[in-house]
Amino acid sequence: MQVFLKELREYEDDADLKLSEGTILEPGREEIRTIFGIHDVSKRFQRLTQDPKLLAMVKQLLGSDVYIHQSRINYKPGFKGKGFEWHSDFETWHSEDGMPRMRALSCSIVLTDNGEFNGPLMLIPGSHHYFVPCVGRTPENNYKESLKSQEVGVPPASSLRELMLENDIEAPKGPAGSLVIFECNTMHGSNINMSCWPRSNLFFVYNSVENTLHDPYCGNRPRPEFLANRSDWEPLKPLNE
Amino acid sequence: MQVFLKELREYEDDADLKLSEGTILEPGREEIRTIFGIHDVSKRFQRLTQDPKLLAMVKQLLGSDVYIHQSRINYKPGFKGKGFEWHSDFETWHSEDGMPRMRALSCSIVLTDNGEFNGPLMLIPGSHHYFVPCVGRTPENNYKESLKSQEVGVPPASSLRELMLENDIEAPKGPAGSLVIFECNTMHGSNINMSCWPRSNLFFVYNSVENTLHDPYCGNRPRPEFLANRSDWEPLKPLNE
Repeated sequence: MQVFLKELREYEDDADLKLSEGTILEPGREEIRTIFGIHDVSKRFQRLTQDPKLLAMVKQLLGSDVYIHQSRINYKPGFKGKGFEWHSDFETWHSEDGMPRMRALSCSIVLTDNGEFNGPLMLIPGSHHYFVPCVGRTPENNYKESLKSQEVGVPPASSLRELMLENDIEAPKGPAGSLVIFECNTMHGSNINMSCWPRSNLFFVYNSVENTLHDPYCGNRPRPEFLANRSDWEPLKPLNE
Repeated sequence: MQVFLKELREYEDDADLKLSEGTILEPGREEIRTIFGIHDVSKRFQRLTQDPKLLAMVKQLLGSDVYIHQSRINYKPGFKGKGFEWHSDFETWHSEDGMPRMRALSCSIVLTDNGEFNGPLMLIPGSHHYFVPCVGRTPENNYKESLKSQEVGVPPASSLRELMLENDIEAPKGPAGSLVIFECNTMHGSNINMSCWPRSNLFFVYNSVENTLHDPYCGNRPRPEFLANRSDWEPLKPLNE
């Protein structure tokens, strides 16, 4: 993990990267919150998407060849990292990106130790069995605000309560390098990082080649490529070292 | 615990109590965040401060007779409860209330189950051995803002990091009715409640009768009675049922 982290630290001082459309800064700050399209920015991260062991698991789970729908790094610095409200990725990908069915999943590789106090990923087990629509019309270019701080289109509290009462919440913990694979419709979120320990998570979203994107079902224009890949649906091949 | 919780639910609809100076509402909301002086508001809670088992432990730890310096209930409703920034109570009680020495402690009784996800109390073990001054002058009537959302007088991140690296963070969990006793100078805080499970904690602050208040060391006027008792320093006597 050390070489990946070193590369990420270099990005923190990269003024060009900070200005690029796929880089989201913390609300009201100049610090990086998320870099989208990390596998396009970095050869090293691109090679990781084709890791033979990772790819074998993903293809087994999705039952077909796969490609990268989205990739990102989330930063959560000590004391300052904000949280993410509860959401299902698929709800957004379906509505705003035109992904037809739940044939995608996220691989999250923790680049720093993930503990109880540095704002770990929280998931509601079993929530992927339910589709919880977010009420209200999605404004055009909603992503520009929602990636910083989600205000519209959040799942209703009553639905979240039902899901939590049924199956509780889980926050997988583990040392840097640990892998969490979760289904694209799993309800998840994370809290503020009140500890001194930074948290960085890498996300690769794999989609089945049998589930490529249509026009967005919400009727808006498609979101940018860095959020939803519409240009390269070639099946990923394992890269042997 | 059920009778205490029932009494608290009744307070939620008590318009007079909501307007009283000792009741702090959530920032930007009409919901109760904290009721100070709960042992003055309620006979039942007052009797609990004199519980023989509780009092015996407190007197053993403080090595003298004791009285109540402050009492409060913190509410943290599901999905909406805000957190509390890291702080040492003694730092405030010394500077703003004129408490001479670290001869006080907090008894926190959880009135609801305290789990990993409903914003439990977090403590830094061993931090009570260090006095971390908060930089900057305390404005007069600072408490009116700081009880809702702390903006000035927070401990420096560098000190918090040092304390955390030395002894980590602990968040005691337990069912309703569990008791946590912590020293008045222990650094503590709590995160946002992102779960559906409300969290209510009851705090009784006991001070040694050998440690009664002077004029505030910061030079401001004393804070109100509901925050710092200056009128009744009589030793508490155990109440037998």
